[in-house]
Amino acid sequence: MNRGEMIGSGLVGRSLAGVDDFSNAELSYVLAGAEEMAEHRERYASACRGKIMASLFFEPSTRTRLSFETAMLRLGGQLVSAVDVGATSLAKGETLADMARVVGGYADLIVMRHPWEGAARVVADYAGVPVINAGDGGHEHPTQTLCDLYTLTKDRGCLEGIRIALWGDLKYGRTVHSLTWALARFGATIVFRPGAGLAAPDHVLSKLATDYGGELVRGEQLVRSDGEGVLPVDAIYVTPRSPHQLAMLPHMSAQLELDRGVDALYVTRLQKERMRVDVGESQPTDYPVVDRQLLRTKGFEHSVVLHPLPRVDELALEMDSDPRSLYFKQAHQGVPVRMALMALLLGCVPSEFPLEKALPDDWRPVEHIDYAHDTGVRCPNERCVVNQPSEARYLSPRFRLIQGSPPRLRCVYCDHEVCAGAIATAEAYDESTSRRKYHSPTSRWSSFIRPENLLVFARAGDAEARGFRPSAQAQVSE
Amino acid sequence: MNRGEMIGSGLVGRSLAGVDDFSNAELSYVLAGAEEMAEHRERYASACRGKIMASLFFEPSTRTRLSFETAMLRLGGQLVSAVDVGATSLAKGETLADMARVVGGYADLIVMRHPWEGAARVVADYAGVPVINAGDGGHEHPTQTLCDLYTLTKDRGCLEGIRIALWGDLKYGRTVHSLTWALARFGATIVFRPGAGLAAPDHVLSKLATDYGGELVRGEQLVRSDGEGVLPVDAIYVTPRSPHQLAMLPHMSAQLELDRGVDALYVTRLQKERMRVDVGESQPTDYPVVDRQLLRTKGFEHSVVLHPLPRVDELALEMDSDPRSLYFKQAHQGVPVRMALMALLLGCVPSEFPLEKALPDDWRPVEHIDYAHDTGVRCPNERCVVNQPSEARYLSPRFRLIQGSPPRLRCVYCDHEVCAGAIATAEAYDESTSRRKYHSPTSRWSSFIRPENLLVFARAGDAEARGFRPSAQAQVSE
Amino acid sequence: MNRGEMIGSGLVGRSLAGVDDFSNAELSYVLAGAEEMAEHRERYASACRGKIMASLFFEPSTRTRLSFETAMLRLGGQLVSAVDVGATSLAKGETLADMARVVGGYADLIVMRHPWEGAARVVADYAGVPVINAGDGGHEHPTQTLCDLYTLTKDRGCLEGIRIALWGDLKYGRTVHSLTWALARFGATIVFRPGAGLAAPDHVLSKLATDYGGELVRGEQLVRSDGEGVLPVDAIYVTPRSPHQLAMLPHMSAQLELDRGVDALYVTRLQKERMRVDVGESQPTDYPVVDRQLLRTKGFEHSVVLHPLPRVDELALEMDSDPRSLYFKQAHQGVPVRMALMALLLGCVPSEFPLEKALPDDWRPVEHIDYAHDTGVRCPNERCVVNQPSEARYLSPRFRLIQGSPPRLRCVYCDHEVCAGAIATAEAYDESTSRRKYHSPTSRWSSFIRPENLLVFARAGDAEARGFRPSAQAQVSE
Repeated sequence: MNRGEMIGSGLVGRSLAGVDDFSNAELSYVLAGAEEMAEHRERYASACRGKIMASLFFEPSTRTRLSFETAMLRLGGQLVSAVDVGATSLAKGETLADMARVVGGYADLIVMRHPWEGAARVVADYAGVPVINAGDGGHEHPTQTLCDLYTLTKDRGCLEGIRIALWGDLKYGRTVHSLTWALARFGATIVFRPGAGLAAPDHVLSKLATDYGGELVRGEQLVRSDGEGVLPVDAIYVTPRSPHQLAMLPHMSAQLELDRGVDALYVTRLQKERMRVDVGESQPTDYPVVDRQLLRTKGFEHSVVLHPLPRVDELALEMDSDPRSLYFKQAHQGVPVRMALMALLLGCVPSEFPLEKALPDDWRPVEHIDYAHDTGVRCPNERCVVNQPSEARYLSPRFRLIQGSPPRLRCVYCDHEVCAGAIATAEAYDESTSRRKYHSPTSRWSSFIRPENLLVFARAGDAEARGFRPSAQAQVSE
Repeated sequence: MNRGEMIGSGLVGRSLAGVDDFSNAELSYVLAGAEEMAEHRERYASACRGKIMASLFFEPSTRTRLSFETAMLRLGGQLVSAVDVGATSLAKGETLADMARVVGGYADLIVMRHPWEGAARVVADYAGVPVINAGDGGHEHPTQTLCDLYTLTKDRGCLEGIRIALWGDLKYGRTVHSLTWALARFGATIVFRPGAGLAAPDHVLSKLATDYGGELVRGEQLVRSDGEGVLPVDAIYVTPRSPHQLAMLPHMSAQLELDRGVDALYVTRLQKERMRVDVGESQPTDYPVVDRQLLRTKGFEHSVVLHPLPRVDELALEMDSDPRSLYFKQAHQGVPVRMALMALLLGCVPSEFPLEKALPDDWRPVEHIDYAHDTGVRCPNERCVVNQPSEARYLSPRFRLIQGSPPRLRCVYCDHEVCAGAIATAEAYDESTSRRKYHSPTSRWSSFIRPENLLVFARAGDAEARGFRPSAQAQVSE
Repeated sequence: MNRGEMIGSGLVGRSLAGVDDFSNAELSYVLAGAEEMAEHRERYASACRGKIMASLFFEPSTRTRLSFETAMLRLGGQLVSAVDVGATSLAKGETLADMARVVGGYADLIVMRHPWEGAARVVADYAGVPVINAGDGGHEHPTQTLCDLYTLTKDRGCLEGIRIALWGDLKYGRTVHSLTWALARFGATIVFRPGAGLAAPDHVLSKLATDYGGELVRGEQLVRSDGEGVLPVDAIYVTPRSPHQLAMLPHMSAQLELDRGVDALYVTRLQKERMRVDVGESQPTDYPVVDRQLLRTKGFEHSVVLHPLPRVDELALEMDSDPRSLYFKQAHQGVPVRMALMALLLGCVPSEFPLEKALPDDWRPVEHIDYAHDTGVRCPNERCVVNQPSEARYLSPRFRLIQGSPPRLRCVYCDHEVCAGAIATAEAYDESTSRRKYHSPTSRWSSFIRPENLLVFARAGDAEARGFRPSAQAQVSE
């Protein structure tokens, strides 16, 4: 079995709830499949004959759903769909796990969109068939990212070393969250240019700083050094593959990257429907608009333009005739990308996809250990699936431990993080209550405790409620 | 042609609006087909090629609809669906009959869910193609019953002589109505354990007492004779196949059956959406819950657990890992059951289904004669299709005459019954008005009038309005 | 290549937004295909294998959508659908053009219903695949018209010379608008019998008077000359093929046609959902009802009855058993008609359809020149697609010039018209401002200006705002 076949066979039966579920080689193999599907659609017209895809959309969507459904039909498979299910089973009080077990007994593959963050992960855990996340709240949208990577790769040749600016609503736009992480993995430098109040959430940047090897420069008003730029960005991620990164201070290398301009603009609309307060009909006036004038300014002359669509006002209609605009092509390419992904997960790819270039290493982001202690920590994200009353009946909070000072716990479902307010060692449980101590989360004790024994408390009070007392040093730090 | 082929060919083109539309042999043959479909799915992958199923859901549903749709696709057929149609054609004022005639001209088979009781019967009368009732208000849900019978038969070997407890909302739960009648027909003993105020409706029990040959003991607080039981049941149906039934007084045989414990628990959720008054978010506190503790009590140690799903709180999540829990299997088995049913109705079964055991007799419940007189009787069920203004323009009340003292009229559409308040003979119409007499419904006259001549009035006043006068005896009885 | 093949190949890739998009020969060839599809369905069971139809319904519909979907499945094609999309993409602010480009990249054919008039035309302009209008507001519904023509042709043999009465809601009923124009093209005489306040809109009658060669007699209370008739009609279109038309005054030929009775009644329900003011539950009392009594009166004894369904009260249920009632047949025939249309547009007809009789000439309605000037004229129809804020960002008003006295501009999207309030010549732009003159729209100048130079202003003030001054004659006329 050659490399492609091995990767392909490793994907059979898997789910895609977040981009980091797949290694770089796996993601690349899906893209190679998309290329093949786009060029030789007729070869795969019966690949999924006899397979049924269930399309479960708990939020309204036309574009993404039709793209998935078209993809499955082009493979010769069939569809059952539940659209706008908000009002049906769940209204009868059913849990996601029950729904997953039932539908998993009908269909061969589930594609799901849901407003709760982490919902696709839960369904994948219970369905017994592959599950694809077609958007879970403001969390991830990994197949959109596959389309984005495919479009960029086809146009730019490769992702390594390119500079891409993420533009607009980086807070609520789940597509940019998945894309941010994927771009970092493939060695792109990322420039964040949010609208006012719409910066990328902490947990997205935090994962970027921790898991992918590059440098994140954030929290400063970066401007181009010639003082000209329309780019008041609020964060830059500089890939370790950047020529500047290793030799310099992070801030300097970020500045140098910025001065070189961007290869691609990834524009997003304001996700009004996820905002708490209704922002009314019109775009906020300071929402950054991409138009011909922008594309004439220095640093953007050679930028291609992507947009996950639908667009509203943030991308001028005059751009449609500009050869740098790739967004309609990007939408159409969603079909072969999803064909390749589904055929692979269903084990319906008869032979290896042809590979134009070697697959990358089987690289994945840093894996963090599971946090196995119950120290009363709860996911802070109220849209997380684990915080919904119906799901809390059977789901417990689950975290991974992100080591550091202070250590953090990252929710397995939605990637939001909790910073330690106090730490202790699990070995203390073997001691008498009077000798149990907790420490400041930034104290040197943190490095002496073995990771599997590290207890993380959100607040010192939670440690005390469990019979721990402050160590001398902890008392000082509070 | 052997027995199976004869039964199969007799089903072609038929509809299934209620379980009693099929004989016991026919129901059993569908189950034999389900067994075959489950074991040899690939044999039937093209059985319904070229056939189109219309799925018309006038009430929200995900589970049942996806099960039907999956079944049709697994047979190689195709789908057109109209989901949540409440707001479309009917809002334009169209009758069910018109809808049936139009859609019957498009599709080869119609699967319909509708809030009006008897709606599927009306559609079956007009569509010109087979119609399957996927739930009509609180009336019937016969394919759920087929799944239930299939699951029970596979697990218990046969239905004859088993004792099954129906649990929870027996009033609004249409699945238990169809199941009650079907279980009685196959010789099961049925224990009714409703939540407070949720007893099985009179018309369900009345049919049980009249049509299936066993004994119904009701209206008493039965408890187990050892005084222990969690079983304050409010009715028991003892099958004529029970060893106790013939030799004893009904109440004693019921008590003996009860003491033997139950083989199966059929749990249902509270059908909040059918209740008039909103019961709020939470289950009523006295709603009986099935959990491990219950399954440890005497009489339940060997009970398997079924549930038509979705569940809310009435079935503890902890039961999921119990080997006696059959409900997820039951949900999955809906697909082969519906495959077999649809393939048979469409005449797409190329050869006889293999039969593991002999088919039962071609038994049906007692058939009652059509009531052919217009004596002003109306169906008392306001959710009945015949009582909807749009349908009353072309549907007349239709009843069957249930002989007895007093005689009753049973609505052909929804099975609700009207007790005679006065009776007379149709021969009186040949007499002068002054000699027309009506009688007390429980009088001995009832047995002298030939059934086809028996006039049933809901109230004595209705008889008087038609020129009848009280007989001496009727005057006394009022 | 023979005639049928030539016409068939000329239809490949085309769209059908309005009936006048096809020539008479093309419409007839679709009907010949429908005949073939109805008689030999099995021959076409794989004709569209591998093709995907997107069904986009921005207004609720069951009947039309199921008819299209059934048709595509009967051809071996597949479906993706978006039903009730009102709340999805468009709610995110997307334009029709963007939606068209995206969905056109997924599917091979788009079937669309939308509340905005002209919406299908816009989608056809941008989708890159054939688009079929399944109803655009109160404007057109051309495939319903194809079904109507097919039903009439099959029953009456031909359309030429038949007299058909359009009955009921002629104002909001889009089906009658498309039908009116198509009947005129095929040489039928049309009698308009609206309910009170529901006369055919001006733009429908105006086009009838201008484009199809017959005589329109309107605005009078025509009654049958024997004084008997139930036909207080408000307009009659007399085809040029009528034996009376050429020899007589229009009003006399209309009267003679009227006295001959009608061959067909085309009944429509009140389109409550398009009316501004809610008319409540019941039909207005003066809405004309078609029942057996009507069908016994003079002039209707041999009338067949058509109805696009759904019906409410305007067509009595008692008519269902009348052999002259064709409406259920008409509904069923929608499937083969749509099969033929879609197979032709997709280029999936392997050989010529058999032709029972010669195809008619390749006749089309009069073509009017494009109006290429911006004189501030706007489409007066507030439901027109060009007047929707989201679409006005990229669509400009587009008109055709209807010559006459006064000249008129007809909206390319919705067929509504603007009468000139003033005219001028574009050559005036070459002159100094002080010499630019405008004229009365009915003045003799109109005939001196070459059509391509004719400037049309809605009001004299609009001309003045552009630097024109009244000519002496214009001053007089105002």
